[in-house]
Amino acid sequence: MIKISPLAPDVFPNLAVIEGVKFAAAAAGVKYPGRTDVMLASIAAGSAIAGVFTRSATRAACVLDCQAKMNEDMSQGAAILVNSGNANAFTGTAGQASVDRICTAVAASLNLPTSAVLTSSTGVIGEVLPDHKIIGCISALTASLRSDALEDAAKAIMTTDTFSKGSSATLDIDGKRVSISGIAKGSGMIAPDMATMLVYIFTDAKIGQIDLQKLLKELSNKTFNCITVDSDTSTSDALICAATGASGIDVSSDESFARALECLMLDLAHQVVKDGEGATKFVAVEVTGAASRDDARRVAMSVANSPLVKTAIAGEDPNWGRIVMAVGKSGAQADRDRLSIWFGPHLVAENGWVAKGYTEAIGTAYMKQDNLVIHINLGIGNARITVWTCDLTHGYIEINADYRS
Amino acid sequence: MIKISPLAPDVFPNLAVIEGVKFAAAAAGVKYPGRTDVMLASIAAGSAIAGVFTRSATRAACVLDCQAKMNEDMSQGAAILVNSGNANAFTGTAGQASVDRICTAVAASLNLPTSAVLTSSTGVIGEVLPDHKIIGCISALTASLRSDALEDAAKAIMTTDTFSKGSSATLDIDGKRVSISGIAKGSGMIAPDMATMLVYIFTDAKIGQIDLQKLLKELSNKTFNCITVDSDTSTSDALICAATGASGIDVSSDESFARALECLMLDLAHQVVKDGEGATKFVAVEVTGAASRDDARRVAMSVANSPLVKTAIAGEDPNWGRIVMAVGKSGAQADRDRLSIWFGPHLVAENGWVAKGYTEAIGTAYMKQDNLVIHINLGIGNARITVWTCDLTHGYIEINADYRS
Repeated sequence: MIKISPLAPDVFPNLAVIEGVKFAAAAAGVKYPGRTDVMLASIAAGSAIAGVFTRSATRAACVLDCQAKMNEDMSQGAAILVNSGNANAFTGTAGQASVDRICTAVAASLNLPTSAVLTSSTGVIGEVLPDHKIIGCISALTASLRSDALEDAAKAIMTTDTFSKGSSATLDIDGKRVSISGIAKGSGMIAPDMATMLVYIFTDAKIGQIDLQKLLKELSNKTFNCITVDSDTSTSDALICAATGASGIDVSSDESFARALECLMLDLAHQVVKDGEGATKFVAVEVTGAASRDDARRVAMSVANSPLVKTAIAGEDPNWGRIVMAVGKSGAQADRDRLSIWFGPHLVAENGWVAKGYTEAIGTAYMKQDNLVIHINLGIGNARITVWTCDLTHGYIEINADYRS
Repeated sequence: MIKISPLAPDVFPNLAVIEGVKFAAAAAGVKYPGRTDVMLASIAAGSAIAGVFTRSATRAACVLDCQAKMNEDMSQGAAILVNSGNANAFTGTAGQASVDRICTAVAASLNLPTSAVLTSSTGVIGEVLPDHKIIGCISALTASLRSDALEDAAKAIMTTDTFSKGSSATLDIDGKRVSISGIAKGSGMIAPDMATMLVYIFTDAKIGQIDLQKLLKELSNKTFNCITVDSDTSTSDALICAATGASGIDVSSDESFARALECLMLDLAHQVVKDGEGATKFVAVEVTGAASRDDARRVAMSVANSPLVKTAIAGEDPNWGRIVMAVGKSGAQADRDRLSIWFGPHLVAENGWVAKGYTEAIGTAYMKQDNLVIHINLGIGNARITVWTCDLTHGYIEINADYRS
């Protein structure tokens, strides 16, 4: 029995219905018995679709296919089909052939060009995708498309996620309502493969494809690209956003829309970290005072990925010496004597030494919380970043080492 | 009770005595009760001394002090004093003051200039070094210096190493005998801090300081800089080599000496990995066919540091999909369809897919060995590298998360 992450939200949120998109889920039996494992999203004509994908040099066939289609004309409408249980990665020429067959079948069923069908796969690497099982479900999926079935889709794309992930926002812009709803999967584990993050976001806002792509990329760098569970990058990560325009509200240069989308993306990104393998602590690593944004990122990721920092957090050990170590090894410009470190509101170290008034008892008490903030001020420049991570526990080893033993 | 690493050598090697160096160890009570924790090495006049140190931006006072002294004249002789139990790192201005006091006391006791005294400290970060305890031992250390006490020195510098580490080589060059003996500590854990690697190598070969420094740096890049336990870099790493010249054999451009030194350094580096926290497997990651040496290193380190690869190895899981993932995320030039992967002699994957004839049973049987070789041919260029690592087990989490809980 899968134990739900202690950091999981209490309830799945209500997702606003997005006019112009419909969803369906089905049980194709790709790998998991007794649950849904395929989702289909049908997106109305006139929508703008943008995507951000893994930069892995060994990315999966479906990722390469999506990237190639991002510049295609999807004005007649589009579809997204996602399966869990098999990643269709490192499957040679068979990989692209599976993608082509699925796209052809979905296109025929929804009367779309194949160039308007996007797919994702998540699961085992190196095994040929049994695409016939997926294709066998397509007419049933098409027949059951519903505008209020996004939660079903969120469940179908789970692998060993311990909870399904969704987020939604509704804005009033010029007295009219604009909605955004998104789902994600991530950081669950499939034997014998790595975690994969997949995110799908839908909105009834009106925005051109080029503007949407630009916004999505910019916001990814502040949200999904600022999380790390274990420093390992999937071959299949994909984020796709579709804007149907059904609200009639143009948000091309609307700041409140960009903010709402950022908040929603951040919420989904945080949920992915909170379902990090074995996670018991959710940790924000804030770096300020860096010489450049790159340096800030280097320090933050060095801390957030350090096994010694992450195991200390798991042990509720206020081990600031390991943070000093991680700053030192990051390669960023840093000066031991200008650096300061906080645990939440508590100043821990400054001027190259432990801070006056800081005691081990203060740090130990702080570390007992589920949600931690590690703040590092490099004291050099004005650049800053925040990244999010989780702790490294026996649960991580159990999931990843013991799973097949 | 500390459990000795299952990868530890059966016996401590016989270390050749090096004419011109003497050693002593003492119990100063810096932190550990009932064991030695300080070592002193006295090096004869006319020796050449070279060093390679951590590049951490937050390195310890003693490291900064050693680096500053590397260009000093040590023709009157030199000394190395090392303590375990306290790293004297991130201790503000008090750190350098402690180093100065220790150097002054050693210099007075051995009639040397302070500029010829090198120190290392390993242990807790952020606590002031009780240097008076160390200084209190110096006259006893000086009085007990012996040429055959290098093994005692190896024991005194241990922190939570599970075995002491030594290596020795004897060469015949032009019918005369040249010896090299070295000791190391590393990858043991001290609450609340990170592993530190310290290495001291002595030889009676004759070689100029500039040549020795160049050789040491070059060989470090092929040995100690090619190992990783957990991707975390200490604030205190130091490698010091002293050549006394007592053999009368000039090895400045002697290839057999360079090879012997490289083998000895590699042996010590491997011992550090074999004492990696929680290690149960010793893993060589060989990368060939890379576009450049940097690319080869990037791929090898990406595989060797990947928590998902390391936990798979711990679970004896022949999970080559995770190797594909680690190659993909490395940032090096790679092509999914030109890449091939071997487990030892077994071809696992090629042409973007699992290899014909490879079966899960072959991989599973191979993974049961203690010593594993993962070979990755990128199929692009001619550059290559080998790095060494260990697996990531519950033992690592226990040592680093549970130690103070």
